[in-house]
Amino acid sequence: MRGGLTRQLLSCLARPRGQVRPLYSFSESTRAPATVPFTKELFGVKRGPYAEVTSDDIQQLAALVDGRVETDKDDLLMHNTDWLRSLRGCSPCVVFPKTTAEVSAVLKYCSDRRLAVCPQGASTSLVGGSVPVFDEIIVSTAKMNEVIEVDTDGGTLTCGAGCSLDHLEHAAKNQHLFFPVDYTIREAQLGGIVAAGLWPDRARPATVLPDGTVLDSMSTMRKDNTGFDLKQIFVGSEGSLGIITKVAMACPSLPKHINVAMVYTDSFHKVLGIMRMTKAHLGELTSACEFMDNEAVMSVKKKYLSAWGVPSKPFYVLIETAGQCDMHDEEKLKTLFNALKDKELILDGQIGPLNYDDPTFVERLWNINTRILAALSRGGNVYHYDVSLPHDKQYKLVEKLRKELSGEILKVASFGHLLDSNLHLALQSHNFDPETSDELDRTITDYVTRAGGAVSAELGCGFRNRNLGAHCKDPVEVKLMRQMKQLLDPHGIMNPYKVFPDGA
Amino acid sequence: MRGGLTRQLLSCLARPRGQVRPLYSFSESTRAPATVPFTKELFGVKRGPYAEVTSDDIQQLAALVDGRVETDKDDLLMHNTDWLRSLRGCSPCVVFPKTTAEVSAVLKYCSDRRLAVCPQGASTSLVGGSVPVFDEIIVSTAKMNEVIEVDTDGGTLTCGAGCSLDHLEHAAKNQHLFFPVDYTIREAQLGGIVAAGLWPDRARPATVLPDGTVLDSMSTMRKDNTGFDLKQIFVGSEGSLGIITKVAMACPSLPKHINVAMVYTDSFHKVLGIMRMTKAHLGELTSACEFMDNEAVMSVKKKYLSAWGVPSKPFYVLIETAGQCDMHDEEKLKTLFNALKDKELILDGQIGPLNYDDPTFVERLWNINTRILAALSRGGNVYHYDVSLPHDKQYKLVEKLRKELSGEILKVASFGHLLDSNLHLALQSHNFDPETSDELDRTITDYVTRAGGAVSAELGCGFRNRNLGAHCKDPVEVKLMRQMKQLLDPHGIMNPYKVFPDGA
Repeated sequence: MRGGLTRQLLSCLARPRGQVRPLYSFSESTRAPATVPFTKELFGVKRGPYAEVTSDDIQQLAALVDGRVETDKDDLLMHNTDWLRSLRGCSPCVVFPKTTAEVSAVLKYCSDRRLAVCPQGASTSLVGGSVPVFDEIIVSTAKMNEVIEVDTDGGTLTCGAGCSLDHLEHAAKNQHLFFPVDYTIREAQLGGIVAAGLWPDRARPATVLPDGTVLDSMSTMRKDNTGFDLKQIFVGSEGSLGIITKVAMACPSLPKHINVAMVYTDSFHKVLGIMRMTKAHLGELTSACEFMDNEAVMSVKKKYLSAWGVPSKPFYVLIETAGQCDMHDEEKLKTLFNALKDKELILDGQIGPLNYDDPTFVERLWNINTRILAALSRGGNVYHYDVSLPHDKQYKLVEKLRKELSGEILKVASFGHLLDSNLHLALQSHNFDPETSDELDRTITDYVTRAGGAVSAELGCGFRNRNLGAHCKDPVEVKLMRQMKQLLDPHGIMNPYKVFPDGA
Repeated sequence: MRGGLTRQLLSCLARPRGQVRPLYSFSESTRAPATVPFTKELFGVKRGPYAEVTSDDIQQLAALVDGRVETDKDDLLMHNTDWLRSLRGCSPCVVFPKTTAEVSAVLKYCSDRRLAVCPQGASTSLVGGSVPVFDEIIVSTAKMNEVIEVDTDGGTLTCGAGCSLDHLEHAAKNQHLFFPVDYTIREAQLGGIVAAGLWPDRARPATVLPDGTVLDSMSTMRKDNTGFDLKQIFVGSEGSLGIITKVAMACPSLPKHINVAMVYTDSFHKVLGIMRMTKAHLGELTSACEFMDNEAVMSVKKKYLSAWGVPSKPFYVLIETAGQCDMHDEEKLKTLFNALKDKELILDGQIGPLNYDDPTFVERLWNINTRILAALSRGGNVYHYDVSLPHDKQYKLVEKLRKELSGEILKVASFGHLLDSNLHLALQSHNFDPETSDELDRTITDYVTRAGGAVSAELGCGFRNRNLGAHCKDPVEVKLMRQMKQLLDPHGIMNPYKVFPDGA
């Protein structure tokens, strides 16, 4: 969920902390945790050859973490149920280590006992990567939430894996740094985000391997060219190779000003033209270039006040700049706006600096973008896909789906991060239907694979995409992934039933 | 060798192709290849348990690559000798595959026969990473020099591993893209650069494993979150795990204007102050912020005309911007310049836009920076170190060396890429002395390790740094590197005697 660097750039604007943000959450429309069916039953998963957790195990684990173990039924229900309230495991306990050494002791114990482990941050995974399927021991990073060091000159923020995005953004901003991670769910914790591979380039994690070995690749030095780049294997491994306990993040300087324009146009072809001119005019200043189609924006307009004043148009492009000189940035954005009009690429639009006396202008425009999925989910069930595709093939997929899909689907809405070739698809129906879901999986995976794209651009594989990911991957790569897994986690205790296809 | 994004940004300026660039080459001051001692003898290296290359092997290999095999004595001498003319192997042949399939066939043959292999690009490694030590078969990427695809909208350049930097820069520029790799030796080939790990974040390579398996991670999609990030293991593996045959590079838009300022100051403390204000004023516009000390600049002034007009000052900072609007960029640079004067951080300086009627102004200032090592090497032997260090510990190392070193060392010059915490040290002496070299290795490695830095920031381990790298690495990491090596290259045929410490 981002656009280029985007969303959290908003934090540069004065805004009271604690103000309610537009959460990307389906919770309003979905069921109570206790009614969520068990994943193992819904998907017919077979339990792996792990030991059963005994009450003695729980006592032993508690002793390793100074008693910080949760076994209360209601609390366990929350930890066992995923963010979207659609998957549910049956772990008997959550362990809360506070230090890397405690994580090491816990994993060593689980490894020796052959107990399966499910690492968990704020459990905001949208693909079921952070909830157990059976009785895996949940190891939470939540108590490792310290900002350890901020190096303003070097541009590095070193912090515990359990720090939330809000916390990190605040810590960075205090030192004039820009925390380069964006995700609309602000509770998300850094360890989980790095493990999910969302922003791979800037993170140097310290990781505990399944046998308790600590691998500290957490140099605060940006450049270290002395051997293989091992840390990178853990960035994006989704907890299946170890647990990230600390991260050193490279952070750029905080931009001083954010400006936003929303422009309207009548074809996706012109959307791409707008993107090209944006790059040419704004260059290094561009922090986001997001498109949304009519179905996406009108859904928000229907459900939230935040889209007031936005007319119904075929396509919308949200352009954001993040720079050091407001006057220059405004001028560049205005020049771009006029150039787009001259070239007849846009019908009209709203531009931040022109009525910038309204401090919530930027926020309001972004609200439209970030509320699309939530708005659609208020009107029923949403099948959500997040794919990478070459630009010229993106909207053809949307049109194909609208044309070919059965009557089950009420609406196909799309939006995307143009600078990253990343397309989000939201297909609305009255209810979830397994057959429709399978049909969509097949159609979209085939299309994306043929077009040279990726079936998961941002969200990872987790439980939901475990088969899709492998489907469009070179078998050589899947084999090598298995070998790495075997090397680092020989007993297969780390986050089983995820990432790898069924039967792997 | 870069500063932030730096050097090749110069290509944005109109400049005739083919103009001689300031090469970072020691060749003027060093010996003829035929007089370079054999590495195995100079360093007492023991040959690994590989098969001896027979004339039948050479015939078989030739058959696999359509006869493209070099066995001429003079040509072999060039391929066996390193860029700095200080290391020399005795390979009996160079193989020139043209395709990934040919590389696969060659490696499979060598693997089956247990023949050791030395991958080679333009052989511009400054740590002996690309020349054999014994009779390794040299597999050259030079003939895989096609630009395969340029996707301007997606910002991706896909090309063969043998493309040179000049070639790539030109191909990118033609499509309004900015090739994000910089290295002063322009012959350097992309495969070698990616293998050496110089710019890890933007490259997606296709790699041939030692047994001939092709691993194609070369998606042109920036975001692919479907499994482990395997490609990253090869980025920086220096040919010890496989051969990179193609690379998809993510390229930003081409900046339209480059401006440069050179400012003078009297302490390293103020150098850091200048860096802070540069970040605050120029932010996203900053493409380089380089410091040089008096010893470094005066060496260039003595040897090259290019430093005319530059006075003798204790410290110099070169600041470069790369943006879309010349007027804005100039204004920001002038404002910064005046703010630096107001705060008494600088003594004086030269600023690009103020006399920008001279089209070679930018080039001239950069020439000073890029000629430091070459200038020093004209006056004798140079011991060169390239380390990462926290800013506040950088110049203390320079001062320590000046104070403590024996009379052997004539001059300690330093310069660095401030935005990357990267310090280059050049220690000049009349002649190379093994004992002084060892003493320097120890002193610098100890200091850097204690300060939490990295002993090789840019250049890799290769042959020269194979022991230094391991010295300051966590043994857990070295062990894991060995396990990866064992997994991917069980017979150890790929680039032996490099990367790993002696006896590994």
